[in-house]
Amino acid sequence: MNAMLHTIEVAGIIAFASSGFIEARRKRMDIVGVFTVAFITAFGGGTLRDLLLDRRPLFWVENQQYPILVFVLALIAMPFLRHLRHAVTESVLEWADALGLGLFSVTGTSLALEAEMPVFICAMMGVITGIFGGVLRDVICNEIPLVFRRSQLYATCAFSGCWVFLFLNWLQASEALSLLAGICTTFALRILAIRFDWKLPA
Amino acid sequence: MNAMLHTIEVAGIIAFASSGFIEARRKRMDIVGVFTVAFITAFGGGTLRDLLLDRRPLFWVENQQYPILVFVLALIAMPFLRHLRHAVTESVLEWADALGLGLFSVTGTSLALEAEMPVFICAMMGVITGIFGGVLRDVICNEIPLVFRRSQLYATCAFSGCWVFLFLNWLQASEALSLLAGICTTFALRILAIRFDWKLPA
Amino acid sequence: MNAMLHTIEVAGIIAFASSGFIEARRKRMDIVGVFTVAFITAFGGGTLRDLLLDRRPLFWVENQQYPILVFVLALIAMPFLRHLRHAVTESVLEWADALGLGLFSVTGTSLALEAEMPVFICAMMGVITGIFGGVLRDVICNEIPLVFRRSQLYATCAFSGCWVFLFLNWLQASEALSLLAGICTTFALRILAIRFDWKLPA
Repeated sequence: MNAMLHTIEVAGIIAFASSGFIEARRKRMDIVGVFTVAFITAFGGGTLRDLLLDRRPLFWVENQQYPILVFVLALIAMPFLRHLRHAVTESVLEWADALGLGLFSVTGTSLALEAEMPVFICAMMGVITGIFGGVLRDVICNEIPLVFRRSQLYATCAFSGCWVFLFLNWLQASEALSLLAGICTTFALRILAIRFDWKLPA
Repeated sequence: MNAMLHTIEVAGIIAFASSGFIEARRKRMDIVGVFTVAFITAFGGGTLRDLLLDRRPLFWVENQQYPILVFVLALIAMPFLRHLRHAVTESVLEWADALGLGLFSVTGTSLALEAEMPVFICAMMGVITGIFGGVLRDVICNEIPLVFRRSQLYATCAFSGCWVFLFLNWLQASEALSLLAGICTTFALRILAIRFDWKLPA
Repeated sequence: MNAMLHTIEVAGIIAFASSGFIEARRKRMDIVGVFTVAFITAFGGGTLRDLLLDRRPLFWVENQQYPILVFVLALIAMPFLRHLRHAVTESVLEWADALGLGLFSVTGTSLALEAEMPVFICAMMGVITGIFGGVLRDVICNEIPLVFRRSQLYATCAFSGCWVFLFLNWLQASEALSLLAGICTTFALRILAIRFDWKLPA
């Protein structure tokens, strides 16, 4: 279980960092900009969650290998970035991003629950953990955040997955089962939303 | 006194959230975007204050009903939002916003004083609490923050009200009197600034 | 040594605040906007560092004279701001900014080391301390942050200086020597980058 979570986490970080790479490149930033935007995209949500819950050390300080991973990726990827959009197909990125969204959201909710937050707050902390990296990426790149624009369900998938986790937890299901169900719900909803172009009313 | 403060606080949250609704709608966001922007507008200032003063639990975690209120408002208001600008007259919003500004600023100063901050810092914490939600709203909606643009006095009203509170407190007036005087000063100055179009030199 | 550091710190604050003044004026903000943007530019990086490291009181709360200094500067400078760009030559600003960058970055790294962060994190905390004020200034002024755009080396200088400090510290050189070497490296690299137009590949 733990090894699986760890693998998904690394996949999520790589997916989020990649979306940062691509966005930063589109804005013609240099390598420092590319690395910083990737870093903020991958770790922004978890950092805000840790600040709000007053958790120390921050998760990327505890796992120093994560920022180093992003740093090395930025160094390696830089020469290829011009071609990255073509090399990595859009749908690979979307799947990894959906996985990362599920994992970050549901573990965010789980950490908030551990910190004994009230239940509605737990769901919100999950969504914040999942989406805030992307919000910061877009704010820094001077765009209206993608998750707020009218497009296929995104935050809603995370919100649903967090409630599935909270519901199973309340039924006293095992931690592993609840986490897995929440992550799968988020992931499946997001993939379906992209596939069938589900949108919220505006 | 406490019941009155509570009522003003709810009025302030509704006013700040409404400005978030309206701004988010203008940018064509979907309901998740509308809720999130409203949430950030209503709670952003107080959250930053709590982070800077290291206060936990955060005020919207302690009062779980506040975020739920904004969530329910977003659900209810969504179908009407297209018409909200006409239904709610501009001046009702301005009065509620001025009330919220006064309340948030002066209570922010009071909390900073409790945390034994130096006096100039207390005044600044008050202003931060009062204006930062609107700043975040505008940054996310990709605008230069309204309070920084040249327009009718806004932050200045909050700043003045905070100093009135601090001055009365220094004279050892009762807490209730000081709070009330500070809130009224901010409120009155803001209403007058709108009425007579007072602006700062640029 | 301490007096020298203090002098550099005040020079750095004035330099960072001035860049905030100028940027805010260019966006036609009023005096409250000008003060706030200057404040955020000068103290944003250190504040984020203090939040991430959970250090309290914040450095500008501990040194109340710093925000007061910026406040007074804003009051005095306001009438002259229209002419400030001509009065203060560009290169004076650049030298002060480079000094501030060196000082803020290297002391940031030193504080992270004191808080027993792992070494790569220490270097990142230094860079965050040095550059984040400017990032916030540009985000608020609705620009893509200057340090991320392709221009002469900036964050890279800070990053290098932080590693010089960490390396000397690891060799058990005295605190004063390590700090000085780190600051001078950052400062010299930045001045050279401007002089010879060094850029990173994009």
